[in-house]
Amino acid sequence: MNNPIGVFDSGVGGLTVAREIMRQLPNENLVYFGDTARVPYGSKSKSTVLKYSRQIVRFLRTKNVKAIVVACNTASALALDEIAAELDIPIIGVVKPGAKMAVETTNTGNVGVIGTVSTVKSGIYNDYIRELNADITVVSKACPLFCPLVEEGLLEDRVTDDIAARYLQVMKEYKVDTLVLGCTHYPLIRNTIKRFMGDDVVLVNPAFETAKSLKELLTQRNLLNQEKQRPQHEYYVSDGVESFIAFADSVLPCHVTDTKVIDIESY
Amino acid sequence: MNNPIGVFDSGVGGLTVAREIMRQLPNENLVYFGDTARVPYGSKSKSTVLKYSRQIVRFLRTKNVKAIVVACNTASALALDEIAAELDIPIIGVVKPGAKMAVETTNTGNVGVIGTVSTVKSGIYNDYIRELNADITVVSKACPLFCPLVEEGLLEDRVTDDIAARYLQVMKEYKVDTLVLGCTHYPLIRNTIKRFMGDDVVLVNPAFETAKSLKELLTQRNLLNQEKQRPQHEYYVSDGVESFIAFADSVLPCHVTDTKVIDIESY
Repeated sequence: MNNPIGVFDSGVGGLTVAREIMRQLPNENLVYFGDTARVPYGSKSKSTVLKYSRQIVRFLRTKNVKAIVVACNTASALALDEIAAELDIPIIGVVKPGAKMAVETTNTGNVGVIGTVSTVKSGIYNDYIRELNADITVVSKACPLFCPLVEEGLLEDRVTDDIAARYLQVMKEYKVDTLVLGCTHYPLIRNTIKRFMGDDVVLVNPAFETAKSLKELLTQRNLLNQEKQRPQHEYYVSDGVESFIAFADSVLPCHVTDTKVIDIESY
Repeated sequence: MNNPIGVFDSGVGGLTVAREIMRQLPNENLVYFGDTARVPYGSKSKSTVLKYSRQIVRFLRTKNVKAIVVACNTASALALDEIAAELDIPIIGVVKPGAKMAVETTNTGNVGVIGTVSTVKSGIYNDYIRELNADITVVSKACPLFCPLVEEGLLEDRVTDDIAARYLQVMKEYKVDTLVLGCTHYPLIRNTIKRFMGDDVVLVNPAFETAKSLKELLTQRNLLNQEKQRPQHEYYVSDGVESFIAFADSVLPCHVTDTKVIDIESY
């Protein structure tokens, strides 16, 4: 089935998930939407994130997507269950695959989760992890400055190290052996996080696990694209094409040209 | 005339402008709108900020406001002229009063302006300042991390000092004697900025100048409220009442109770 897969995020961060999908499912066509006008979602309420996510899903359906990936941790945390119940096509988020991997990885049973304020407040990683193994202790911490630091390009910087040390101190205190990077921006400061946490702590990147889950899902449902021509990807944003393309080119293996601005509020 | 004055901002920052209006016009009723669902505006394009501002003006008009204050520097920079041309009630922004004060303050003719990416890119402070005095040199610099640092509460912190030193170094190099705080969040880290710039540099807070301009405007047009009863203020946001109230209580001289969430996209 050569219909595209819809991938959406609050902005550019979800491109790290799109990248993993392109790697693991190189035959699939993608339609990516980044809500660059209303980014960030990480400080917004459930009702607002749910409303925005519904608008985006309505837009993606106009592109005849065969499945949807919620590439944003906050939207996965606050909106996925409601939207899945309203849809007749498969939809997956990044939280469940990330939680599953954390459970499979930990030896000590102490798992850390970092994310936006809204993701952490939702407690969803804790719920999923404890559902899989009730003996695991989950320590979660919101890191609201990480996204602006990444977007300002301070990936290797003493300020980012300083802030990381404050946010992550609690993870050392609880001796976590596994840390979930519960926001799509965080893998971009993976080195900073690793430097503070040390080599013995495994960093889980939900993007990788999500692409793996997506592949399993499409295989099970017989939805994989069997055509062998080069895939076509389309990109849509709600604002600011230039800065989107600049970021996309730094993240994706292919050059992004075809990016359109749409009026997402009208969906 | 006891109709209220409408004041709007991309979020909570405009409350520093509302506070100045309450001080200088203690008799006036205010209707404040903070677009907390779509904050920040500082990285958005002109067309998006204009669209959002028009929706907000339509909402404020349902409250029968007699005048509107655009308390957001970015919206003042990107949307004020277009909206003023569409309105039959007076509207003022924070940029013009701030620019005027900078021109009156500088002795050396070297003026600095700091603000969001969109405000600085618009070049509007430069335009207004040079319109008033073409001999003035304007140095402007976007400081995108200042807002997240303020919202994270790092008002007095080595990280904020470190970031301020990087952003403001250029202001020292150009020997500015006047620095416009061109974003409503920046007065909250005034001490940090002053520590780096030194006591000889005057920091201009457009909020104060805007309230002064508003008073002049209402006086000229005979729109001042002559009734002597205690003013009533109303607060509206597009998301997250609790965090709005917490911030408002830390900024305003009065306790904020009556805050409602509205669906701004429907205006």
